[in-house]
Amino acid sequence: MARIDLNADLGEGFGVWRLGDDDAMLRIVTSANVACGFHAGDPAELLRVCRSAGERGVRIGAQVSYRDLAGFGRRFIDVAADDLAADLVYQIGALQAIARAAGSAVSYVKPHGALYNTIVTHREQAAAVAEAVAMVDPALPVLGMAGSAFFDEAARRGLRTVAEAFADRAYRADGRLVSRREPGAVLHDPAEIADRVVGMVTAGRVTAVDGTQIAVNVESVCVHGDSPGAVRIATAVRDRLAAAGVGIGAFS
Amino acid sequence: MARIDLNADLGEGFGVWRLGDDDAMLRIVTSANVACGFHAGDPAELLRVCRSAGERGVRIGAQVSYRDLAGFGRRFIDVAADDLAADLVYQIGALQAIARAAGSAVSYVKPHGALYNTIVTHREQAAAVAEAVAMVDPALPVLGMAGSAFFDEAARRGLRTVAEAFADRAYRADGRLVSRREPGAVLHDPAEIADRVVGMVTAGRVTAVDGTQIAVNVESVCVHGDSPGAVRIATAVRDRLAAAGVGIGAFS
Amino acid sequence: MARIDLNADLGEGFGVWRLGDDDAMLRIVTSANVACGFHAGDPAELLRVCRSAGERGVRIGAQVSYRDLAGFGRRFIDVAADDLAADLVYQIGALQAIARAAGSAVSYVKPHGALYNTIVTHREQAAAVAEAVAMVDPALPVLGMAGSAFFDEAARRGLRTVAEAFADRAYRADGRLVSRREPGAVLHDPAEIADRVVGMVTAGRVTAVDGTQIAVNVESVCVHGDSPGAVRIATAVRDRLAAAGVGIGAFS
Amino acid sequence: MARIDLNADLGEGFGVWRLGDDDAMLRIVTSANVACGFHAGDPAELLRVCRSAGERGVRIGAQVSYRDLAGFGRRFIDVAADDLAADLVYQIGALQAIARAAGSAVSYVKPHGALYNTIVTHREQAAAVAEAVAMVDPALPVLGMAGSAFFDEAARRGLRTVAEAFADRAYRADGRLVSRREPGAVLHDPAEIADRVVGMVTAGRVTAVDGTQIAVNVESVCVHGDSPGAVRIATAVRDRLAAAGVGIGAFS
Repeated sequence: MARIDLNADLGEGFGVWRLGDDDAMLRIVTSANVACGFHAGDPAELLRVCRSAGERGVRIGAQVSYRDLAGFGRRFIDVAADDLAADLVYQIGALQAIARAAGSAVSYVKPHGALYNTIVTHREQAAAVAEAVAMVDPALPVLGMAGSAFFDEAARRGLRTVAEAFADRAYRADGRLVSRREPGAVLHDPAEIADRVVGMVTAGRVTAVDGTQIAVNVESVCVHGDSPGAVRIATAVRDRLAAAGVGIGAFS
Repeated sequence: MARIDLNADLGEGFGVWRLGDDDAMLRIVTSANVACGFHAGDPAELLRVCRSAGERGVRIGAQVSYRDLAGFGRRFIDVAADDLAADLVYQIGALQAIARAAGSAVSYVKPHGALYNTIVTHREQAAAVAEAVAMVDPALPVLGMAGSAFFDEAARRGLRTVAEAFADRAYRADGRLVSRREPGAVLHDPAEIADRVVGMVTAGRVTAVDGTQIAVNVESVCVHGDSPGAVRIATAVRDRLAAAGVGIGAFS
Repeated sequence: MARIDLNADLGEGFGVWRLGDDDAMLRIVTSANVACGFHAGDPAELLRVCRSAGERGVRIGAQVSYRDLAGFGRRFIDVAADDLAADLVYQIGALQAIARAAGSAVSYVKPHGALYNTIVTHREQAAAVAEAVAMVDPALPVLGMAGSAFFDEAARRGLRTVAEAFADRAYRADGRLVSRREPGAVLHDPAEIADRVVGMVTAGRVTAVDGTQIAVNVESVCVHGDSPGAVRIATAVRDRLAAAGVGIGAFS
Repeated sequence: MARIDLNADLGEGFGVWRLGDDDAMLRIVTSANVACGFHAGDPAELLRVCRSAGERGVRIGAQVSYRDLAGFGRRFIDVAADDLAADLVYQIGALQAIARAAGSAVSYVKPHGALYNTIVTHREQAAAVAEAVAMVDPALPVLGMAGSAFFDEAARRGLRTVAEAFADRAYRADGRLVSRREPGAVLHDPAEIADRVVGMVTAGRVTAVDGTQIAVNVESVCVHGDSPGAVRIATAVRDRLAAAGVGIGAFS
């Protein structure tokens, strides 16, 4: 039977501000990409979400980012490789202690936002991210995009790479995501999104914005928790996968 | 033979800004209280100082603080206990990963600045600090002031407490430090400071600002790294202790 | 005819995070306390809300705060008077330029959160706030609590003081607000709140938590924009005042 | 007689951290580029340096930056134009109030670090910077590099542009600065630097890193205050200009 991991970004409030419905998403996903304080996530919020994830048996990943609260980590920063690597070691360690205090652990690392997109091609920063994970714990898998510079650098360091696809994001013909600054970057229709995900998981294909079918290699599907209707979309994805006979479970 | 630990605050720059001469201090002390990013210490700086400490065999402690870069952690913040505890778990974990990446480890925890002073008497925050350490690792000793609410809360949680005295700070008759906002709070004469330390370590006594002799219970002496003449003072302390037949070594 | 100003806190999002429904509140109030970036309010958000306020003829006030994004300015910080005064001059000036760029201006200053509460009694910080306003522009009125140390310091510097009451906050018998950390600090029933406001404005009285009637001196009433049901409550207050024959208009 | 303005970056400490010797530099330069809090400069520090500048008759400029304390504004950030413009309006306004409180005023605007370099060619961000200045006060001159996209956008909005050269930075043959990440980017020999400046001011020429002579258009010369030997270099520049019969004075 086909089997897929569902991941979502959680713990993305800060102080008094909330984002998304973490509790609802934790009932749907199998992997929680928990913010680490650099783009979102104050420690008390992170502790709460790690406790909830632990109680529900949802695996915790460290969602590392550029240092950019004001931009929510969505803006490329031309940070030097050594500084970036140290920033990520710091973030992963912070979440490890939070997860441990919550009776759980950090099981993987996933870069966030602009960092995620940058290291698809930016060799120096890709190497810095891979190096940071290896410095903390070379047994930690990394989530990212198949074929990326990041996966190349991660593999060179012996890290386990877990290819991921995005349920609600439009793809370009070259397999990269359409930028959030462009129209149509984010899909909104639950049924359409659910159908796309089933196609990705069972047929390894998705339709790009120019209409071409492109191949996707996917062990985990990212469903967003912070968009309007996020919970409804994630539920549709989960239900449609079940109906297609796909098991939902954390990647090995 | 009497034996004493010397500790100093290190890694207290941020970004382009430096503070103190970390390399020189690492040749003098046996325990390095490394900042954790909330009052000072960007991750790249922390990684550098942890590497230097590791190379020199100096033990690393997590110098945790209120979240206050602009105030260098020297201002009391009326943060709720749960938020404070989570802030500290985050900081300790961040430094643990940095230390691990540097081939070393965090061996103890020491609160910084206003937090240090506050938890001498503030029961709720003292309990939060002790709880945070216990949540991360109950085997981590804590440095602080003998007789403090903090030590009481730490002991209740089974934490090892290490009593510390300050080489260059004036003491009040009640055993607390004279506030930095008051004149005479910080001593500057290396010979006088060195003599005080020898008295603390060998006789368990120090002269308070009102001239009375007060008892001090001390397993570690804090020498500052960020004041003018810091290296000269720390060297004087170390040499004077050696001359008095006191061994310098990390607390057990 | 009785006449009252209605003020609300606006512009209190940060980056990707939103708080309250600023557009709805701008249709109700006559004075907008716009955040200045230290407890909330990134500059782009501030520019948007100042433009909306200008278009609707709502007056803009600078809602100054301790530097504390993580705590939303709700935690007392023991900042030195000179540092606090400079922090406030900075914030007021920043909002003045934003308001000017939006075709409007800053017409008054209102301290936020813990700073607001602190300077009811904390003489040194009260003087710092008053001094900051006087340094920027002694013609700027200040909103605050009648009888406070702040008003005393403001009056000594020739500042116009505008006494304010809170529509949805519980009062202690001594005229201060019940702390947000205590139960019952915030009222939620629109009808009850609207009735209280009418009593404050027309009779100069409100019922404290211990049941006693206390006098309130009020030229402006604060309606919150960030609580659940905020818009409904503010609408109820406005409608009930109108029904009682009270005109709604900016203070002179 | 030839006449030139000397400018330097000042107020670039933050909290407990200092950078450069502001008082010494204020005895040398005629224009002080004062940080605005986004790359450096806490408000109390800014107030102090504005007071000193005012007392010495040194003109104050707003040295605006990306929001990046950890990177000291030296890292490109791909911030959206609207957000950047609002960030700059905020910073200029903040310093205007600080300068006013110090009995002085902001007389010009100069972008800092990576922003300065980026808007030599980045059209969208260049336009955002020019637009921000125009929104605050179209009578404010801007300092920058002749021939830049920034000057083009500034001129289109009717802003007065003041061309500047760098005393201690190496130039590429295309007239841009050698990146700080490359070797030889910063010159250190006071005599060589002073000679270069005299050549720039009196002959309009400087030698690029490849040995070619390039033309420089200069109304103001930037001398750095934060490098080792900064004061000695700036003094050499000032003395050598005087010896060459060049008057030192603020640009008109």
